[in-house]
Amino acid sequence: MWAELAPIGRHPGTGGYRRYAWTGADADCRTWFQEQAEARGLTYETDRNGNQWAWLGDPLGSDAVVTGSHLDSVPDGGAFDGPLGVVSSFAALDELRHRGARFTRPLAIANFGDEEGARFGLACVGSRLAAGQLTREAAHRLRDGEGVSLPQAMENAGYDPDAIGPDPERLARIGAFVELHVEQGRALDLTGHPVGLASAIWPHGRWRYDFAGEGNHAGTTRLADRRDPMLPYAETVLAARREAELAGAVATFGKVAVEPNGVNAIPSLVRGWLDSRAADQSALDTVVAAVEAAAREAADRQGVDLTVVRESFTPVVEFGHALRDELAKLLGGELPVLGTGAGHDAGILSASVPTAMLFVRNPTGVSHSPAEHAGEDDCQAGVRALADVLEGLACR
Amino acid sequence: MWAELAPIGRHPGTGGYRRYAWTGADADCRTWFQEQAEARGLTYETDRNGNQWAWLGDPLGSDAVVTGSHLDSVPDGGAFDGPLGVVSSFAALDELRHRGARFTRPLAIANFGDEEGARFGLACVGSRLAAGQLTREAAHRLRDGEGVSLPQAMENAGYDPDAIGPDPERLARIGAFVELHVEQGRALDLTGHPVGLASAIWPHGRWRYDFAGEGNHAGTTRLADRRDPMLPYAETVLAARREAELAGAVATFGKVAVEPNGVNAIPSLVRGWLDSRAADQSALDTVVAAVEAAAREAADRQGVDLTVVRESFTPVVEFGHALRDELAKLLGGELPVLGTGAGHDAGILSASVPTAMLFVRNPTGVSHSPAEHAGEDDCQAGVRALADVLEGLACR
Repeated sequence: MWAELAPIGRHPGTGGYRRYAWTGADADCRTWFQEQAEARGLTYETDRNGNQWAWLGDPLGSDAVVTGSHLDSVPDGGAFDGPLGVVSSFAALDELRHRGARFTRPLAIANFGDEEGARFGLACVGSRLAAGQLTREAAHRLRDGEGVSLPQAMENAGYDPDAIGPDPERLARIGAFVELHVEQGRALDLTGHPVGLASAIWPHGRWRYDFAGEGNHAGTTRLADRRDPMLPYAETVLAARREAELAGAVATFGKVAVEPNGVNAIPSLVRGWLDSRAADQSALDTVVAAVEAAAREAADRQGVDLTVVRESFTPVVEFGHALRDELAKLLGGELPVLGTGAGHDAGILSASVPTAMLFVRNPTGVSHSPAEHAGEDDCQAGVRALADVLEGLACR
Repeated sequence: MWAELAPIGRHPGTGGYRRYAWTGADADCRTWFQEQAEARGLTYETDRNGNQWAWLGDPLGSDAVVTGSHLDSVPDGGAFDGPLGVVSSFAALDELRHRGARFTRPLAIANFGDEEGARFGLACVGSRLAAGQLTREAAHRLRDGEGVSLPQAMENAGYDPDAIGPDPERLARIGAFVELHVEQGRALDLTGHPVGLASAIWPHGRWRYDFAGEGNHAGTTRLADRRDPMLPYAETVLAARREAELAGAVATFGKVAVEPNGVNAIPSLVRGWLDSRAADQSALDTVVAAVEAAAREAADRQGVDLTVVRESFTPVVEFGHALRDELAKLLGGELPVLGTGAGHDAGILSASVPTAMLFVRNPTGVSHSPAEHAGEDDCQAGVRALADVLEGLACR
């Protein structure tokens, strides 16, 4: 399976993946998913929000067991974040058929659309729409960096943007959702286990900082006459790191857009995005408020206007204990249970459906980078664990 | 003339101009130039480096008087920077014909290609090539932000990239080059004069700072495990302003490129461009060395690698006193004489040809921005001054 998926959307220069929602690379990944489904005789469908489903058993049956993840990527992402969960789902089904398992509940493998939010700035669009956590109107307002709107992008990709919206009947038919994902830190590696269970997803959000100054000539404008937005942006980057350290949280400016972005032009606008996460809400609030205060102070000092917009926010997600305990029993032994700073479709769906997550060891902890890696043995252990879980849940 | 030129390459959102070398907007500007030349019965030609020439009299004659400027722009530039000099040249010729002037020397109006360097990062490519200050080999290595090389871009625009190179015979036929340009600061406005003469161009250069860290997930990577290049970039931005203030110079980070530039990804690379200029070489050296030292210190502290490349450098250009004094005599009165931090084709050509510059008042001093402006009366005064100069030089 990996062989066909590996080249799609891979940038020859960086070796990283650029599989953004509703692009050609995304379409190729979707075709791959459909082919995998059909090759196994599964019933293939897309839902109203463009998420893909491959069903063993009745898609309209109740109490279904669903697994899967996503196939899109961050800019220059790694091979595992997302695809490992989808590939492992198909591989686990193969393993269960090899074991001669008899299914008593409908089983589905899902690929949720636009999980990373790399193109439109909002993560988990496919699952948010389905769960009613993003309205059609708000989704229609999303635009990518080129000014293309989400509806235009969906339409170009052959999907109907007017059909999107909440899908409660579909979610009501799901009895359990289990997402397998490569770990995005080193916690598992430190325990020595190849596979672990998720406890909770940290609260996290994205804030857009627009520093608006005055565009001017970099050679001829006296320093005293400048309103250069790059200066308060730089101070805010440093404030974010400082405040995150103080609070034991994380805070990052990883994306920036400058206008006009010319070597000899003082910028008229510097737009930076703050990503911040913490183990609890109060620590996160502290960081976010302190960074904004520092940014305002720095902007005022330079005569620069500042607008801060919260683009997305996800409160802490504690995965339900009943399903997690059931998985722990099915998998036996002393399975590590760990929290994570990364958002997932499982986190979104957990508000509507009993949800659990399995993590596969990532020895370097590197993620969202071409260097992201999981060993083959660990990936096999992940498939076996997922097969055990699905067998326990769907073949009782 | 302005009416046809005004809409070309204008961005509907910003109102700024995006006329980058060898793009469609640039081609439209070139067509406009050719039409203006032909409408006046001038002999039109392009030289081996893609610069455009419109000749009154023998293009192969000696001791020619040349005026002109450039038509390309910085990103979201203003309407005057460049085009004012070209439009004023044609208008001055119209004025001289109206006066019944009789030309005793060949006269040419020139449009030099790629003056701003907005696309390939190096300013004054057309005049540098002609003057032998940029080799064909070095020019062939230039690439734009999309990875398109200069030769590819020239070829796409219908020019022969293998023909480029020094043009000493052409320059030897020029007895004087006078460039009229909108002022890019407020010095003239403070004197109350609509037109002034250039004394010198400050030494200036561009340095590319590549901060290479480790791409990783912004939510799951502990602060202690990060090698985030955005942090030393931010410190360097602040150091540049601080050092420029200390030295009475200017220093600006106006352009930045981030990889992968994702909201939830710690960057693997932050590339920033320093533009710095000062009234003398020693002040500039001081600033440039201090900024690099601060950047290295900050990069080391974050485990980030730093490469600094000087992309371009132009030493101080003192315009020849003989031609400047002649212009002052022709224009009479108490003409202000001023230095400038901006580079110009006139500065490049002054090493090969007697060269002078006229500045037209800019009441706000704003430049490289859609808000750049010169009043109509001042523009007319500029045309009259240029006509007086050309008449004095070419009709003796």
